[in-house]
Amino acid sequence: MQLYGFFRSSAAFRVRIALNLKSVAYDTIPVNLRSGDHLADDYRAINPQGRVPSLAVGEDVLVQSMAIVEYLDETHPEPPFLPADALGRARVRGLANIIACDIHPLNNSGVLDYMKNEMQLDADNLQRWYRNWVARGFDALEALLAGNAASGRFCHGDTPGLADICLVPQVFNARRFDCDLAPYPTLMGRFEACMKIEAFEAAQPANQPDAAE
Amino acid sequence: MQLYGFFRSSAAFRVRIALNLKSVAYDTIPVNLRSGDHLADDYRAINPQGRVPSLAVGEDVLVQSMAIVEYLDETHPEPPFLPADALGRARVRGLANIIACDIHPLNNSGVLDYMKNEMQLDADNLQRWYRNWVARGFDALEALLAGNAASGRFCHGDTPGLADICLVPQVFNARRFDCDLAPYPTLMGRFEACMKIEAFEAAQPANQPDAAE
Repeated sequence: MQLYGFFRSSAAFRVRIALNLKSVAYDTIPVNLRSGDHLADDYRAINPQGRVPSLAVGEDVLVQSMAIVEYLDETHPEPPFLPADALGRARVRGLANIIACDIHPLNNSGVLDYMKNEMQLDADNLQRWYRNWVARGFDALEALLAGNAASGRFCHGDTPGLADICLVPQVFNARRFDCDLAPYPTLMGRFEACMKIEAFEAAQPANQPDAAE
Repeated sequence: MQLYGFFRSSAAFRVRIALNLKSVAYDTIPVNLRSGDHLADDYRAINPQGRVPSLAVGEDVLVQSMAIVEYLDETHPEPPFLPADALGRARVRGLANIIACDIHPLNNSGVLDYMKNEMQLDADNLQRWYRNWVARGFDALEALLAGNAASGRFCHGDTPGLADICLVPQVFNARRFDCDLAPYPTLMGRFEACMKIEAFEAAQPANQPDAAE
């Protein structure tokens, strides 16, 4: 498999964690979002949306990180990213999507670029925007994690899963934008537990081949 | 089951379509986003994120529309929302998430309210913002649908599935904001095919009990 990604992309970071947890070997093909590689015709021929990550599997190219992580879970069942019961699976997917739908898409580089270039919003406005969506999402996550007996050492039980795969990259992003994480002790406890696992640590931005630039 | 929703919420619209396709009876509990019902303490006790939809299943409350639709698909297998093969499932989830992650979250009412109230952006700016994300997402979807033999009468094959469940509400939204849909003949063909099905038609905003207000 070939993973088209960018060291700092938190969506690519999710897929790197998933590949590592499943012990799937892959090649990294860097797509530099800062120099606009993702918008070039040759990359759009691979992924018409012009976003990372994309995962090439034989002749097929998979797009959208959450779809890719679910694919890896279906094709490499161990260790599972979702619990066995349907209600538990819905809980984990719900936690994951609070990040994947309601935090990350609002704060990605394409959105911030649009706001800066098309709306002439200044850095202060962008910072407040960024922190607002992190805080709203993390407030909900903290309540859902702290208030539910299904939370364990990780977001759901005692093994890392889909929600943790989304949480860790989002915490990296939140730190990069100096978000206040003190109100989220439950969430941060799960983050710290994940970062003790090699699959998460190896996937972090600083450890990617394109991070040196 | 009780569905907490709002007639105009396109995330709730997805769940209504899914419930109808699965022939699952449910009660509607309207949560008026215009009068701020979703932010009241009693609703936040149900859904800490203060968003719709939520689906009450016995003592449990499920949040996040995509997690809810997958739950319904797992617990009510017929008709399936995802194809049987893992690559097909990844394709459908990828198409669906282009809408669920990269169009809808940028254009929902909470985001538009923030931009108006906290950033003092005018209606013209909001309109351009809205149309930009619809166009970027629909451009990618049109390319992925038109360029793939797996597309059939619907987004994947000849039965409606997860991608169609996301597409139809997004087209309703796009029309409400006067987006140009002429560049998307393949996508609109699938939309029209869906709207001939009672499950989709009955789920549309105008047919909801809270639409009259």
